[in-house]
Order: sequence, then structure tokens, then C-alpha cells
Amino acid sequence: MKKKISQVVIKRMPRYYRYLSELLEQGTERISSAELSEIMNVTASQIRQDLNNFGGFGQQGYGYNVQYLHDEIGKILGLDQTHNLIIIGGGNLGHALASHTTFNKHGFYVKGIFDINPDIQGQVVNGAKIMPMSELDDFVKNNKVDIVALTIPKEHVQEAADHVMDLGVKALWNFANVDLDHKEEVVVQDVHLSDSLMRLTLNMIQNQTN
Amino acid sequence: MKKKISQVVIKRMPRYYRYLSELLEQGTERISSAELSEIMNVTASQIRQDLNNFGGFGQQGYGYNVQYLHDEIGKILGLDQTHNLIIIGGGNLGHALASHTTFNKHGFYVKGIFDINPDIQGQVVNGAKIMPMSELDDFVKNNKVDIVALTIPKEHVQEAADHVMDLGVKALWNFANVDLDHKEEVVVQDVHLSDSLMRLTLNMIQNQTN
Repeated sequence: MKKKISQVVIKRMPRYYRYLSELLEQGTERISSAELSEIMNVTASQIRQDLNNFGGFGQQGYGYNVQYLHDEIGKILGLDQTHNLIIIGGGNLGHALASHTTFNKHGFYVKGIFDINPDIQGQVVNGAKIMPMSELDDFVKNNKVDIVALTIPKEHVQEAADHVMDLGVKALWNFANVDLDHKEEVVVQDVHLSDSLMRLTLNMIQNQTN
Repeated sequence: MKKKISQVVIKRMPRYYRYLSELLEQGTERISSAELSEIMNVTASQIRQDLNNFGGFGQQGYGYNVQYLHDEIGKILGLDQTHNLIIIGGGNLGHALASHTTFNKHGFYVKGIFDINPDIQGQVVNGAKIMPMSELDDFVKNNKVDIVALTIPKEHVQEAADHVMDLGVKALWNFANVDLDHKEEVVVQDVHLSDSLMRLTLNMIQNQTN
């Protein structure tokens, strides 16, 4: 039984990976924790503490080897493996996710899109075919589907979530503006666009009145 | 000078609003802090503390009037006013945002979309016209643009952000997977889809090994 890692740490890991990827692209081979701290706008001790949750990779006084740290964090994030996604909901948002080429670069592959609208069934988006919902069960059973992205209206999303959880799917990426009920062994990551927009507005108001 | 309200509180406010909207739709007139706490999965004392940041609206022992609390939180979130948005980037994600009808319901109006691709210029998405970038300056000057959504590749997003900040825009909704440099008087809300997907995967791995 491993120590449970807090969501604030988990939230920072993709950001570390993103900055390290950029450093690699720029050809940076080695970086001190002070420099990494400055470009990422977190304290050096915070970085060390975060990495220590996963065993730690620091070389005190000598800094971090960018490639090594990048690859190790990539392994923590599971990016050394490939992950199959399907998308339920073939609207604009479903199209946007399927066309998001960065996902492929990190080993995420959209294998299929499912939608109730017969007018768009048969279309292919970035290699993924839009199929009717009646083909969902067989598709999930026959393909190793790790993650289901839900880009359907909130009125139908819980039903779809329950359905794919019953098929054994363990990760849901939810874009409907509702909090899903889910089994304990299933993880859910929400992208609540309306909440995000309201948060931006509230910060704008707060910024103006302070 | 008002007290600076923490981002964790600010993050929870749209969620409160969302749950209160749902209660209203269900016809609930009054709710105890214990009931609200249970459906929202936060403690009653947390709810009271959060609301106290904005003056507090509790009626101890009697519960909350749902309509009143909904409307007051709406005012805090600025939803008693309308907000004009433009979108820079007319791809799938830009289309998805422009077509997101819930935004209109909350007083957010997409007034225009800007894109460098001449093939899509002139298209109208949910009432918003796709225009060339050369029309951006005049449009921002002539329309009361509060918020700019950035749905362009990360390579170009800082330049676009700098440009609209110079035009006086105070709120950026950034969908590129990069952290933007911004002026102090400007607020930025990020929707980092790759980070979100990696976080989901990391949680999935953690959930499997615990």
C-alpha cells in the first residue's frame, strides 16, 4: 500500500512535465532547482517536496538532468505507455479533442467516437470513426479502452458514465458541467467550462475592486 | 481595499452556483446547510466560511433560501451583468465555445471570432462571425469586449495575448497548453487540456496501485 499522494501534487506533475519538455526542446541539458523554480514560479523546496513523493530525483548543488527528470516524470504520469481513448459525443468539443494532435505525441490515441446523430455517423476525425451508440459495448470489449471522454449534454452524461463504468472503464474525462457519481475504483477528471468562465469573471471583478 | 479572497474559495463559488441552480430547477425553496453540505460533498462549516468571505448569507437553524442564495452568489460572480467575449482561433475548440449555449444563459455573449484562415472567414457560428485578424483592433475598440478566449496553438498565443492586453482587455481565457505572461491588472484562467488528461492518467495509475 503506497502513500496516498495529494491532488495538489498530482495537479503540479503535468505542469513540471510541460516545462521540462520545453527545456528539452530548447536544448537545455541541466538546470538548477533555483532556475527551475524561477521559470515555474514555485519554490525550489516545493519542487523537491513534490518530487520526493515519487522517490525524489534531486542532485543537490549540481541541479537536475533535464532529460532524466523529464523521462522519470513521464513514467510517473504513465506516458511511457500508450492509452486508448474513446469519445462519447461527436459535436464540436468531441471533434476538438479528437483533433488535438498533442495527445498523440504523449501516447494518447482516440480510437473511436460515439454519437446518437445518424447524420455524422461514418465521419472520420483524425483517424477516429464516429459510430452509433449501439456499437459502443462491443467496441469497448474488443479494444483496450482506458479512458472515456464525455462530451455530451449534462442531462445524459450520468447515464453514459454508468454504462461505460459497467463495461469496466476506469477513467472518465468529463466535460459536462455536472459532478458525476462514480464507483470508487473509477477516477474522474472534470473540465467544467462554465465554472472556468465564471471563475475568470469573479477574478476579473476581484481584480478591479482591489 | 477589500480582503483578498483565496483561489480555493473562488474556485468553489461557481460550483455553489451550479448546485443552487439545479435545486431551483427542481423547485427546492429552502435547504439546510447540512443538506447542502451533503449534496455538495463539502462540510457545512466550509460552506459558511466560504460565504462569509462575501458577507455571509446563513440563517442558522432555518437554512438557506435557495433563490436568494442563488441570486446573491450570481451577483458575486458578476452574472447580474452581461459580458462580451471574443474568441481568437476559429477551429473546433473555438466553434465548441461559440456554440456553448449555457454561456448565453449566464449572460456571456460571444460577439466575434477571429482567425487567420481565409477559408473560414465569413462563417457565422451561433451568431458570431469569423473575421480576419486585421479587423481585431477596431472590433475590440468598438465593442465592449471583456473577455478574450484564446484557442490558437501555443506557439502564437503569447503574441495574441500581448496584443489584446495592449488593446485594454483585462481577462484572458487561455486554452493553449502554456502559462501566459500577463500584466498585473489582467486575469488569466487556463484550461490546459493536456495537463488535465495527464492528471486523469496519473490518478488512474495511483488508484490502481493503492
